[in-house]
Order: sequence, then structure tokens, then C-alpha cells
Amino acid sequence: MSTAFEFADTPKPPYYVVVFTNTKTHSQAGYGEMAERMESLARDQPGFLGIESAGDARAAITLSYWSSLEDIRAWRAHLEHLEAQSKGRELWYSGYRLRVALVEREVSFPAGG
Amino acid sequence: MSTAFEFADTPKPPYYVVVFTNTKTHSQAGYGEMAERMESLARDQPGFLGIESAGDARAAITLSYWSSLEDIRAWRAHLEHLEAQSKGRELWYSGYRLRVALVEREVSFPAGG
Repeated sequence: MSTAFEFADTPKPPYYVVVFTNTKTHSQAGYGEMAERMESLARDQPGFLGIESAGDARAAITLSYWSSLEDIRAWRAHLEHLEAQSKGRELWYSGYRLRVALVEREVSFPAGG
Repeated sequence: MSTAFEFADTPKPPYYVVVFTNTKTHSQAGYGEMAERMESLARDQPGFLGIESAGDARAAITLSYWSSLEDIRAWRAHLEHLEAQSKGRELWYSGYRLRVALVEREVSFPAGG
């Protein structure tokens, strides 16, 4: 959230999106570093297609895009990611919803943007 | 974005999500009122299941949940919503991506939350 927002350059559907919405605890110490590390780690995983994130001090939505369910499963089971998930539940997230969805259609503005 | 974040109380999958990510122009005058009006209108549409939104001055992500593709099509073609979409492209959005996706799986924290 510290850098400018960038749209993910996703391919023609179908592909998968992991929709992660979370509310935040009062203490976000260490969160930024972990998020940056996880993003850089995710970019190296097989099937990673992109990430988009927006939020404020209370809540955030993070969208990560993937080629297949298997790629998502592998990323969720990655050891360093498992540790980060556990720390998130302990320290940073007061609540979350994680939804896995198959993207069927995409529209851009400006067109072709 | 002016009210507290609330998780959408979505049913057991499958259901649809419209994932709308947008960057913002410098002038957001009138945006808040329109967004509130659209949310209240959406809540009255057939098949509407919930909405989640997060963002800051630069970008936002809005997730709306729907029972079916037909419900999404009907809402996208709603006259007042069409006007709002057009105003958005003229005034408020410097760019956006709209993705329609089928939610296959959902996980909550705290569990059952």
C-alpha cells in the first residue's frame, strides 16, 4: 500500500483470482515488510499472474491472480507464506474472508488499457 | 469508503463476484453521493448478495456479489447505473478493470465469522 497502485496485466480469461478482504487490528507493526516480502515471493511462484491491492487504516482488499487452482494451493502451502498467514491471524488481521474465484470476463478502461 | 468496512454475508459458493479496481482522477467531487446511491440501488436488485469496498485517495477495489450472470447483466444495464458508469469514465476514474468471476470457495477468519 506504500507504492502507487498498479493494475495487474492479466491474460485473457479464464484464470483464477484469490479475493482477500481483511479488517485490521490497531497494531500494524511489521505488516508492511511482511506484505512486501510475500508479494516478491508470490511473483516467483509458478502460475502467478499479478496482484492488485487497495485499502486504508481499517481494511484492505488484495487480489492475486493465478493460472490454476494447483498454483493457488501450492502458494498457500509455501512454508514462509504459512508463517505469514499465521502471524496475520495473530497480529494484524481482526477478520478476513478469502474467496477463490474463476475469472470469466474482463473489461478495461481506457479500452485495451 | 466513508462508513466502516463490513464483510458481505455471502452464501455458500458457488455465486458470482464482480471485481472492480479503479484508479482515481484528482477531482472526486460528487463521487461519494453517487457511490452511496448506487449501493442502495444495487441492494434492491434481484440476485444481489453483498458488497465490500476498500481504498484510499488514489485507488479503490469494490467487490459486489451476485447469484447469477443474469443478475449481473441486468444490474449493468440498469438505466441509472449506466448513467453513473458514464459519469465515472468522464469524471472520477482515470482507469479501471472490471472482472466477472465465479466464486468456488470461501474461508472466514475468525472461523464461521
